[in-house]
Amino acid sequence: MSVGPADLRAGSVGRRLVRLALEEDLAGYGDVTSSWTVEADVSARAHVVAREHLVVSGLPLAGAVLAEVDPAAEFRAILSEGAHVEPGEVVAALEGPARSLLTAERTLLNLLAHLSGVATQAARFAQAVAGAGAVVVDTRKTTPGLRFWEKRAVRHGGCGNHRFGLFDMVLIKDNHVAAAGGVAEAVRRARAAAPLGMKVEVEVEDEAALREALAAGADIVMLDNRDLDDLRALVAVARAERPGVLLEASGGIGLTTVRAVAGTGVDLVSTSALTAGAPPVDLALDFL
Amino acid sequence: MSVGPADLRAGSVGRRLVRLALEEDLAGYGDVTSSWTVEADVSARAHVVAREHLVVSGLPLAGAVLAEVDPAAEFRAILSEGAHVEPGEVVAALEGPARSLLTAERTLLNLLAHLSGVATQAARFAQAVAGAGAVVVDTRKTTPGLRFWEKRAVRHGGCGNHRFGLFDMVLIKDNHVAAAGGVAEAVRRARAAAPLGMKVEVEVEDEAALREALAAGADIVMLDNRDLDDLRALVAVARAERPGVLLEASGGIGLTTVRAVAGTGVDLVSTSALTAGAPPVDLALDFL
Amino acid sequence: MSVGPADLRAGSVGRRLVRLALEEDLAGYGDVTSSWTVEADVSARAHVVAREHLVVSGLPLAGAVLAEVDPAAEFRAILSEGAHVEPGEVVAALEGPARSLLTAERTLLNLLAHLSGVATQAARFAQAVAGAGAVVVDTRKTTPGLRFWEKRAVRHGGCGNHRFGLFDMVLIKDNHVAAAGGVAEAVRRARAAAPLGMKVEVEVEDEAALREALAAGADIVMLDNRDLDDLRALVAVARAERPGVLLEASGGIGLTTVRAVAGTGVDLVSTSALTAGAPPVDLALDFL
Amino acid sequence: MSVGPADLRAGSVGRRLVRLALEEDLAGYGDVTSSWTVEADVSARAHVVAREHLVVSGLPLAGAVLAEVDPAAEFRAILSEGAHVEPGEVVAALEGPARSLLTAERTLLNLLAHLSGVATQAARFAQAVAGAGAVVVDTRKTTPGLRFWEKRAVRHGGCGNHRFGLFDMVLIKDNHVAAAGGVAEAVRRARAAAPLGMKVEVEVEDEAALREALAAGADIVMLDNRDLDDLRALVAVARAERPGVLLEASGGIGLTTVRAVAGTGVDLVSTSALTAGAPPVDLALDFL
Amino acid sequence: MSVGPADLRAGSVGRRLVRLALEEDLAGYGDVTSSWTVEADVSARAHVVAREHLVVSGLPLAGAVLAEVDPAAEFRAILSEGAHVEPGEVVAALEGPARSLLTAERTLLNLLAHLSGVATQAARFAQAVAGAGAVVVDTRKTTPGLRFWEKRAVRHGGCGNHRFGLFDMVLIKDNHVAAAGGVAEAVRRARAAAPLGMKVEVEVEDEAALREALAAGADIVMLDNRDLDDLRALVAVARAERPGVLLEASGGIGLTTVRAVAGTGVDLVSTSALTAGAPPVDLALDFL
Amino acid sequence: MSVGPADLRAGSVGRRLVRLALEEDLAGYGDVTSSWTVEADVSARAHVVAREHLVVSGLPLAGAVLAEVDPAAEFRAILSEGAHVEPGEVVAALEGPARSLLTAERTLLNLLAHLSGVATQAARFAQAVAGAGAVVVDTRKTTPGLRFWEKRAVRHGGCGNHRFGLFDMVLIKDNHVAAAGGVAEAVRRARAAAPLGMKVEVEVEDEAALREALAAGADIVMLDNRDLDDLRALVAVARAERPGVLLEASGGIGLTTVRAVAGTGVDLVSTSALTAGAPPVDLALDFL
Repeated sequence: MSVGPADLRAGSVGRRLVRLALEEDLAGYGDVTSSWTVEADVSARAHVVAREHLVVSGLPLAGAVLAEVDPAAEFRAILSEGAHVEPGEVVAALEGPARSLLTAERTLLNLLAHLSGVATQAARFAQAVAGAGAVVVDTRKTTPGLRFWEKRAVRHGGCGNHRFGLFDMVLIKDNHVAAAGGVAEAVRRARAAAPLGMKVEVEVEDEAALREALAAGADIVMLDNRDLDDLRALVAVARAERPGVLLEASGGIGLTTVRAVAGTGVDLVSTSALTAGAPPVDLALDFL
Repeated sequence: MSVGPADLRAGSVGRRLVRLALEEDLAGYGDVTSSWTVEADVSARAHVVAREHLVVSGLPLAGAVLAEVDPAAEFRAILSEGAHVEPGEVVAALEGPARSLLTAERTLLNLLAHLSGVATQAARFAQAVAGAGAVVVDTRKTTPGLRFWEKRAVRHGGCGNHRFGLFDMVLIKDNHVAAAGGVAEAVRRARAAAPLGMKVEVEVEDEAALREALAAGADIVMLDNRDLDDLRALVAVARAERPGVLLEASGGIGLTTVRAVAGTGVDLVSTSALTAGAPPVDLALDFL
Repeated sequence: MSVGPADLRAGSVGRRLVRLALEEDLAGYGDVTSSWTVEADVSARAHVVAREHLVVSGLPLAGAVLAEVDPAAEFRAILSEGAHVEPGEVVAALEGPARSLLTAERTLLNLLAHLSGVATQAARFAQAVAGAGAVVVDTRKTTPGLRFWEKRAVRHGGCGNHRFGLFDMVLIKDNHVAAAGGVAEAVRRARAAAPLGMKVEVEVEDEAALREALAAGADIVMLDNRDLDDLRALVAVARAERPGVLLEASGGIGLTTVRAVAGTGVDLVSTSALTAGAPPVDLALDFL
Repeated sequence: MSVGPADLRAGSVGRRLVRLALEEDLAGYGDVTSSWTVEADVSARAHVVAREHLVVSGLPLAGAVLAEVDPAAEFRAILSEGAHVEPGEVVAALEGPARSLLTAERTLLNLLAHLSGVATQAARFAQAVAGAGAVVVDTRKTTPGLRFWEKRAVRHGGCGNHRFGLFDMVLIKDNHVAAAGGVAEAVRRARAAAPLGMKVEVEVEDEAALREALAAGADIVMLDNRDLDDLRALVAVARAERPGVLLEASGGIGLTTVRAVAGTGVDLVSTSALTAGAPPVDLALDFL
Repeated sequence: MSVGPADLRAGSVGRRLVRLALEEDLAGYGDVTSSWTVEADVSARAHVVAREHLVVSGLPLAGAVLAEVDPAAEFRAILSEGAHVEPGEVVAALEGPARSLLTAERTLLNLLAHLSGVATQAARFAQAVAGAGAVVVDTRKTTPGLRFWEKRAVRHGGCGNHRFGLFDMVLIKDNHVAAAGGVAEAVRRARAAAPLGMKVEVEVEDEAALREALAAGADIVMLDNRDLDDLRALVAVARAERPGVLLEASGGIGLTTVRAVAGTGVDLVSTSALTAGAPPVDLALDFL
Repeated sequence: MSVGPADLRAGSVGRRLVRLALEEDLAGYGDVTSSWTVEADVSARAHVVAREHLVVSGLPLAGAVLAEVDPAAEFRAILSEGAHVEPGEVVAALEGPARSLLTAERTLLNLLAHLSGVATQAARFAQAVAGAGAVVVDTRKTTPGLRFWEKRAVRHGGCGNHRFGLFDMVLIKDNHVAAAGGVAEAVRRARAAAPLGMKVEVEVEDEAALREALAAGADIVMLDNRDLDDLRALVAVARAERPGVLLEASGGIGLTTVRAVAGTGVDLVSTSALTAGAPPVDLALDFL
């Protein structure tokens, strides 16, 4: 998927994130080393180069960092987001005042390495379940301030997105069920209040709750922390009751277990391992 | 070190971070599930509980999340930051409207798990070098928006801080040296411009550069990507030339290699492994 | 539906709106008349009183105005949002420094009168379609800066919400269809990209497009600007093809025509008349 | 009056308003429909076209919406603000990435339709009093966040502005008189404190208060909620006492009554009907 | 004049100023010295004490600094703004965590010393013209970000305010006259556009321009850079033409010349010396 | 030192300052006089001209003011910051819409005159100590919101900078010593917590404290409010104990006394007279 201004705009949080990140690096004196050792009129060119196999993500944000530091500097993406990259490949090219490139370097790389790390992790999961008939999706265990961008990176890596936040889907968990007085009542309340475009998901603990959720008209049912046999059995019950319902498995699923879970017949497998703790990849800024 | 208002204040970036994080979770409708399934007048109490061995960090930020969601809810730290915690121990207690606790839950845990993850990682490094005579310090490879807090977490884990950003210390790297026309000239320019309270560090590639840096009056010299023999030799040169200079080793140092590097006689060992890719720890919010 | 802190929080835009509104009234000197003619230590009490029949909405925002002007002043809601009020009834009570109440008066009333106007308008539509088997929903023709609050007011009046913005639902209109090269392709692209919790709606012009939309798996189909006979015929087609699909009628529907449209068998009738041009109601602040 | 950058700048509130309006439409995912169904490199041209008779207002704000969505898109005003437009006339032309135009469309039209609605309403009032010797002016019953722009629209329609806010004029009402202990004392206090460029207006209930206000040196006297005979009598008293004083009639004045009030000899007739509840006009964005 | 919340609110710029000032002092680490040398639980009390004769101004802003640093600390004004103070007198009392008082100290004193310096300067001018029949007023030569507060300080010292900014009064200067094509045309344009509460002032160079300004209906005429004889002559012309017009002398007027100018019969003497370069007074924070 | 984008960026506070300053001048109506008397399409050119001897500082901020008012207007620096200027010399040239230049004029000049005033004051001090072997440095007694820029101006005038804020250096004063329980303990605590790049300064009252500070390893010692004989004696003690320690004299030092203090052997003389009360210089905007 290509990236246009509306995409960046969608993350107006992106602009605030870029400023926050630059301010923590540039508070007070700014980049004193560059200001004091490099003349203002020295120009430079540099390449963002991959140092390992990785999937690219975060280019608009990296460009926004450079633009925020110096509107006169230029950031040019060489590859597209979602591209699988070999070590040594050039991902992007920068040109402008040497001071500005040096000032932007670390913040720009921190973002690219982190988000490409998430995309690369997602690619590992996508490959693990290829052909198994279920989609791996992310969770809300994301880095504060970076959720929009991490969710994009998950898509760049070939996995899917669960809800973005608390605002765009109903997901009824055990505490909500307890507060509402039962699965059926919780689903009923949500249905009555939700706008027409919003789906309702409910987490269930056992077959009785599953049947109650299906009867109450949940669009999606989450089967949390079930073993493979349980999952298969619950899937069978659900398919018999209401074939079109979406079924999601979740809970402690990692790279080694994801394929087995995906093979139980569920539609979705959600895991925080796509984002939380995905290791940053090795990217460098080489001055030419 | 205890945490007072000035500490929080110092991170006014903290307040902005909290808002950014909450807005990405609460855009548009807010927490629709809780609003629609839980009555507004239901109260709740909950504990933040460790699910593994960890070192606590990030409590003021976690408290700020809850306060931002609902000023009437209460966040009470049970343990101090820096505490080493067993699985099952209660880290903090929350009390207030059930809706507010549910709305704050994920953002609060994401921050605590991430920052305690950094502190726990730092504790691993601190233990690895215990008695070796050098301090492990962090770098600027931090999560955008979270640097101040990750640096605090590094201290909670028992390691030290390198500079906070580009603004609070001069660190002359190869590109600066090239632009200035030599180590001596770069150091001279920085010395002339720097305010009286600021130290000057310079990265050197070999013994000649080291001698030039020492002669030019650098406060700290960074020995980048040297093997152990090189490090020992350069340390010997430096101690002979100027005993009081601070010497820093850096470059690709991990948990398995840090102790050997620390034993070469350098004062400081810097590594991005303290922050970049430090895995989040497992913490949960248990409703009582 | 009651209103808790999370609800207010969801509209962090609410806080910004309140500040924007107060700043346009208080720029420069602030409330000079009150500052110069009323002593700072004079207290006052006042009632917000309805001067006509109306449905109440906007109380949290009105309270936020007073709190922003003076945290020491108190705003107490006497009635709930959604209440149907007779002329002369007291909606809310204010107490605090007379200056603060006078300073807040106009901004507070402007918000309450506008939002209660929307709720009152919605109540007229809700009454018009009572028993007709369709729900009246709003559109995105709302007042810039006030959408969240106008959508709440629509619910207080007894109607429903269409999507909140461009972000929480796919709604494929003629321009999107043209750009994508057909209804089926547009729906396919959206399905491939959308997160699992998001529904896809598509606007159709005729029966052929309707059949294409149904075949492509649209969750909702919008029948735009059709006369009553057309609507009945298209509804029949759709129910025969896919009974569970949601059908929405839209386009130039007002209070006098809404019931007939609602009787055609559609599920939803959307109209901008709920919000755009809904006349503000008459509310006054009576000092006691 | 033409509109330059300083005019836009004056409403820096304008920029915040534009952002607030776009954020409520683009939170989270942004314009998902356009991102997922329209390729990033598709260009488009479109016209803003009037669908009814109207007076144009709000063009700088509409342009700011498009610029905020995409700095690379172009908004070109075809007509001037204040122009009286026939149905079918082109008001403005847009050009740029199709996605960006689609994303900006609704927010841009909402603003233009609302503000042109106010200008059109003002034109009705201006025509109603043409030749009657008094100017119709607005009040502070405006839409929160939009006051500056609604007041501009009132001028575009041919009416005048009362004060912008609480900050730029003294207007002493009954509560201020009561708090100060009388009309004379309230005027005296305001005179003593006001900067030299600020006028003082006072609201009076009867002839005695009018005489007191004139004696105290009020620049403007508001005659609130008086019938036509009362107004004529009070005007006669005031003209006899102090010919140059400005006299303002206010209170429940609508399109059908404004001419008669304007004929009583007052200088100004103020009415909230210029802004509150002025119906938005019908404008569309036609893609070429 | 007493200070209430509305007064502070008027200066929402005040809140932003306080944050800006604190952030430049607390960026990055915050107050490291206090954090590292003073325990978090140490309380302190301190007095703001005058070290010279001065007039107090700026107390709400000083209080806002402390509240921003630590909401739990208390700032209590002992004297009122506008009070004339002897050396050694206590102006305000502070109480709270020692760290918080130390962190706030410098920013708080910088504001108080600067604004009391302006008030003290104004008191010198007020005394210089006492009984001469003209009021000394300020200009727009103020410290960026502090105008509202410096204008308050001018009133605390006993002088008056000219316009607050470009927004609250028309002041036609030579460049405007040239652009409009003459004094009469410039005044006419301003009259046509100005809201009813706004006065029009025009700067004149000679008697012909003065007569033109009077004929065109200017409310105030500025006589710029005239010597005493010229001023007396122009005053005589103006009083003969239109007795009630306000006359203002301006241009290079200092403490030694202000009384003579004030004695020429003008109503107002404006001078930037009230604000620009007014020396800060000597105030200290004494810990008890 | 030249000024590049990174320098401006460092002062992101600069952008906020510019906006704050413009908003206090342009609230509400904006520049009404220019809007109403000057046509929007009139262009103008103008020069910023020195009216007295001065040292230039603040050009990037002046340019930012014009850019904020009107991105289409151009600000071109003719001289460099730090230049010593004769009366009549042109400092900068402006070109653009006449309205925009008139709107920006006062704010732009206020900043330039203030900051050039500080640079000019610094030049007086630099000249006073020329050859005396010590550097004059500033303090934190700066104008709130302008610290970064005033510190730059100090360097333009030829003096040096003490710390920027509370965040970038440890400076232990009497209250900290008291709270920590002694000079040695306070220094020890600071050393343990400070990042490796940060220096530690301590204020001492007498020789005993000086010796304690030196023994504890302070990098800099402040000798506060000592007479010349005391200074010489303390310098002798310190040089004997630890030759390389930096020694700073402070306390009530003005233009007439600074040279004598600088001659006592200290390294640094700090004085608030560089910034607090530095008179603004006379600069004008001449339209061509």
